[in-house]
Amino acid sequence: MTDILAADIGGTHLRLVRIQANGTITSQTKVQADFSRFISDSRTAAETHILDTIVHACEPMLAGNSIAAFGIGFPGFFIGDSGILAASPNLPQLHNFALSEQLGKRLGIKVAAQNDALCAAIGELHCGVGQGVRNLLHITLGTGVGGGLILDGRPYTGENGMAMEFGHLRIAYDGQARFCGCGGTGCVEAYASATAVADRYREKSGVTLDSAGVHAAAVNGDERAVQVIDDAGLYLGRALAETIKLMDIKIVSISGGLTGAWDIFYPSLIQEMDAQLINPLKGRIKVLRSSLNDRGGLLGAAELARRIQQP
Amino acid sequence: MTDILAADIGGTHLRLVRIQANGTITSQTKVQADFSRFISDSRTAAETHILDTIVHACEPMLAGNSIAAFGIGFPGFFIGDSGILAASPNLPQLHNFALSEQLGKRLGIKVAAQNDALCAAIGELHCGVGQGVRNLLHITLGTGVGGGLILDGRPYTGENGMAMEFGHLRIAYDGQARFCGCGGTGCVEAYASATAVADRYREKSGVTLDSAGVHAAAVNGDERAVQVIDDAGLYLGRALAETIKLMDIKIVSISGGLTGAWDIFYPSLIQEMDAQLINPLKGRIKVLRSSLNDRGGLLGAAELARRIQQP
Repeated sequence: MTDILAADIGGTHLRLVRIQANGTITSQTKVQADFSRFISDSRTAAETHILDTIVHACEPMLAGNSIAAFGIGFPGFFIGDSGILAASPNLPQLHNFALSEQLGKRLGIKVAAQNDALCAAIGELHCGVGQGVRNLLHITLGTGVGGGLILDGRPYTGENGMAMEFGHLRIAYDGQARFCGCGGTGCVEAYASATAVADRYREKSGVTLDSAGVHAAAVNGDERAVQVIDDAGLYLGRALAETIKLMDIKIVSISGGLTGAWDIFYPSLIQEMDAQLINPLKGRIKVLRSSLNDRGGLLGAAELARRIQQP
Repeated sequence: MTDILAADIGGTHLRLVRIQANGTITSQTKVQADFSRFISDSRTAAETHILDTIVHACEPMLAGNSIAAFGIGFPGFFIGDSGILAASPNLPQLHNFALSEQLGKRLGIKVAAQNDALCAAIGELHCGVGQGVRNLLHITLGTGVGGGLILDGRPYTGENGMAMEFGHLRIAYDGQARFCGCGGTGCVEAYASATAVADRYREKSGVTLDSAGVHAAAVNGDERAVQVIDDAGLYLGRALAETIKLMDIKIVSISGGLTGAWDIFYPSLIQEMDAQLINPLKGRIKVLRSSLNDRGGLLGAAELARRIQQP
């Protein structure tokens, strides 16, 4: 009997689970891992920091049955299914880092690593609302806004591993368009991420709340909170329309903390998406709330591990 | 020895060539075929009108050696490579019309039909600047603005045959955004099609010229003409950036009459595209002018015919 490990590395934390062959999770952990705070120009130091952080988190989990494979969702651009991290927005000193291979050497197990939002898409496809679907666009609403695309059952990564930069689609061009952390302006992430929702509410009200707090305020009738969440839906609807005009995908799933406010942002999302779509596509797109809460990325990483495990 | 037929059906004309197995074009014709002027609510009448128009154009070409196959580029949405026309913007009464099959019955030869811009992409891939490329985004600048995507060497059509509605990407959201023939607002087609260039020049100058005339005026130093063509480049650059952020394609080719003004619109296109791309993609995208003049669609249709011809 062998188990697998799966990790989901987000903007601030690393979550890790150990899963038996029958699907039972035998242990799980969550540790702080904010790679954007790692300050060094050294590429080698950054690589070592990532490896040390992940290996350290794994160590308490390695006792007992042997581990067959380890799947990781990581916020960065991966080249196809090579496990090579081409670049990571949070660690600009990295370049073509063989994360899977290096981590495999350190741990002595097979490792598969892939973009975090794409892992969430794979999780949705195998365990969530995307089951039975051949083509799926999955959107993650977290610290940032991510996208993962499944085409004909397979993850789509693009030529440089940089496909589906959905969060950086531009949906506002006027002088008031918001700045985005990517250096651009008017990105959907600057309106629909948890960070953006909190920022915009603070700008309107002078009150500092996190996105869950903004949602709670909206439920309690705070019009400024309702407006900010409604706007997040509207801008997501725009970005989805642009994506669908290009890819002609019928089914979209959305995960992340902000989906807690689904009843507030879904109507404006659908209304704006249909307003922007070409006529033959209006009313034909299903936008589904993830059924996996925050576990989609972990379940997708576990699926990647299963695919590479020793027979 | 057998020949093939290839047709490229545009907004106003149908062009047809007969090609020998060695690639020699033995005859060619161009006839008026503006399907948008066909006025009847009857689906059957519209279908018959299309078939009659194409068959009539073919008749003078059918003498001599036998014809092995017929490839057609048509402005509409096709379901995969089925040859079924799901819908056509110019003939809204059509719905799931089996164009290849029906035309094959009328002519007694095998027929392959596909979206016109996708045919142009296939032509570029096999005979033009896309030779040797696995992934190619091709843009056509004609009466409208079209897009065709090649992924891993194969045409990408999407779930409903409506992929790559590049011309209807929205690149302006402010109150001055231009209306588009699709019913939307701010579409790239409303700025970068030949029609839009002519319209915008007339609005600025009061003078009616076609897009070639606007280009000639620009070459002669007319600042309003330069501005209109420069704007076309800028808005194309925006729409390309959005597409590349999603698809991560490295090579783009552009064909159509407006490419005659390449020296004027290319600099603003590249500047705006790079300004809007995420950092790791800036400066990495090649945008190439088609080497096929207006023959890309015909050559792509011929390639489709070759693939289905009798052995």
